[in-house]
Amino acid sequence: MKNLNSMGLKISSGKIYVLDQTLLPIEEKWLECNHPKVMETLIKKLSVRGAPLIGVAAAVSLAHFIEEYKPSEKEFVHEAMRLRESRPTAVNLMHAVDRMVKSSNRILEAEMIFEEDILLCERMANHGEKLITDGDNILTHCNAGGLATVGIGTSIGVIRRAHENGKKIHVYVDETRPLFQGARLTAWELSKLNIPHTLICDNMAAMLMQRGQIQKIFTGADRIAQNGDSANKIGTYSLAVLAKHHKIPFYIVAPYTTIDTNCPTGADIPIEERNPSEIRYPNANPSSPVFNPAFDVTPCTLITSHVLDSGIKNF
Amino acid sequence: MKNLNSMGLKISSGKIYVLDQTLLPIEEKWLECNHPKVMETLIKKLSVRGAPLIGVAAAVSLAHFIEEYKPSEKEFVHEAMRLRESRPTAVNLMHAVDRMVKSSNRILEAEMIFEEDILLCERMANHGEKLITDGDNILTHCNAGGLATVGIGTSIGVIRRAHENGKKIHVYVDETRPLFQGARLTAWELSKLNIPHTLICDNMAAMLMQRGQIQKIFTGADRIAQNGDSANKIGTYSLAVLAKHHKIPFYIVAPYTTIDTNCPTGADIPIEERNPSEIRYPNANPSSPVFNPAFDVTPCTLITSHVLDSGIKNF
Repeated sequence: MKNLNSMGLKISSGKIYVLDQTLLPIEEKWLECNHPKVMETLIKKLSVRGAPLIGVAAAVSLAHFIEEYKPSEKEFVHEAMRLRESRPTAVNLMHAVDRMVKSSNRILEAEMIFEEDILLCERMANHGEKLITDGDNILTHCNAGGLATVGIGTSIGVIRRAHENGKKIHVYVDETRPLFQGARLTAWELSKLNIPHTLICDNMAAMLMQRGQIQKIFTGADRIAQNGDSANKIGTYSLAVLAKHHKIPFYIVAPYTTIDTNCPTGADIPIEERNPSEIRYPNANPSSPVFNPAFDVTPCTLITSHVLDSGIKNF
Repeated sequence: MKNLNSMGLKISSGKIYVLDQTLLPIEEKWLECNHPKVMETLIKKLSVRGAPLIGVAAAVSLAHFIEEYKPSEKEFVHEAMRLRESRPTAVNLMHAVDRMVKSSNRILEAEMIFEEDILLCERMANHGEKLITDGDNILTHCNAGGLATVGIGTSIGVIRRAHENGKKIHVYVDETRPLFQGARLTAWELSKLNIPHTLICDNMAAMLMQRGQIQKIFTGADRIAQNGDSANKIGTYSLAVLAKHHKIPFYIVAPYTTIDTNCPTGADIPIEERNPSEIRYPNANPSSPVFNPAFDVTPCTLITSHVLDSGIKNF
């Protein structure tokens, strides 16, 4: 594979490196990933996360597997299927793996998947930034930025483009319990980009809406059903309901690789449940049972528009 | 003062002890509080918290001050006013201090404030439990239990009474960021009471409502305005909006000491903002600005009913 670079994933002299996102923002540690089994582990423990990024990471990991290990077709498909199942909700992973399996030139296919993701981010940013007005306070949830893609991000890409175009904006960042992707990753990215922002707890967004301090909401997505229902990080549905009550536009930003044409509605999207320890950390009562869904589904009726790479779409 | 006992505050042989709620559930440590200045510090750092409890704690601390230090009236009023201002939102504190200042028998007054709070909890529990049906899944936020009062609590008192009366109920406990009063205190209390419960992050409540898994919501309050608008722990307003969208009854449980007859509407309730470090903990991007309101105001229109010691009231 040729050298490829992004905020959280790079290919250099045929080797794959990923930035361990579980350690950010305290430590910026790059890990070498020399086998699809290693990538599977890194995806499962969220060292590599973000729907578009895990798709790209899986693709380059499979290309590297071919280059380094020269597997039989059976061995290749076996590793591909393991990677495909490493997380159940984000469909980008399944799309990317399926493309790799079907391709007649898998090294080139992985490079194309990587470079296409950069381009898709640019297109979403250019479409979406038109929705942002000078002076807007924008709320975002989780991380859908440069760390969730190999480009400038989905929802953060839109925000970044508006900022680059000189619009004076301010971003409220939901910390995003239980794993603090907003507090750790989005706040870190926005700091690096010098985009004015304020960190809040997830339960504070409603109060800001009540006070008229939020004009627009942009989030990413992990899977969009045929009817526009969209799965995203847990807490997104809550924001969409609050947005409706306060008459605030709510936008989902995602590339076509997030749309699942085999999935008729949101009810058909599998929702990953993760380890109770994520919620028990740092100091919960240890004996109490926990419910820990990683995603929720926002019905299309609560989504003002989807910002896709192909344009702004109303399902 | 006579000996008095509760889950988080006790008077024994004329000495005052408080359970340090910042250390729960990891450690159960009782601190002696030998001066109103110490109580002020303990209230500010939330070792003693919960609207009714801080009122009672202030009262007994002032009674102890009289017994132990025999202050002049001027010294007494000075300490009383400092305590009165230790936290700005919960009005129970102001009520209790004002009662102490006006009283002609301050030792007896403090004992009465303590014992009255126990009785008020019993009355709220008996009124409120009638709203609970066998099989209900009940959502609660923050901690409004035995640790927030010197009785069985406000919203948790209602839940406890329904459980004692043999109703099969299950409680979803919002962890309550940033200080995890739900995860640390309510989960701990419900475990001790053997009441079935499940801990969730605040941003998961909406998904449970969407799935029909919550039948009722009960929270406490820190101040109720004349028109019924109610301030409570940050995140409560969010739940009230979500409850309206999902047509779920939303109840506030509070004693008359939480009603501020000098406060016409919720807009007149001062909202405490606390230290950014509460939100930055444990791992947020350290350079990002933070907004940390400790309370929000739910308009009366979103509150199905208030459960008061005097009965169930629709403002």
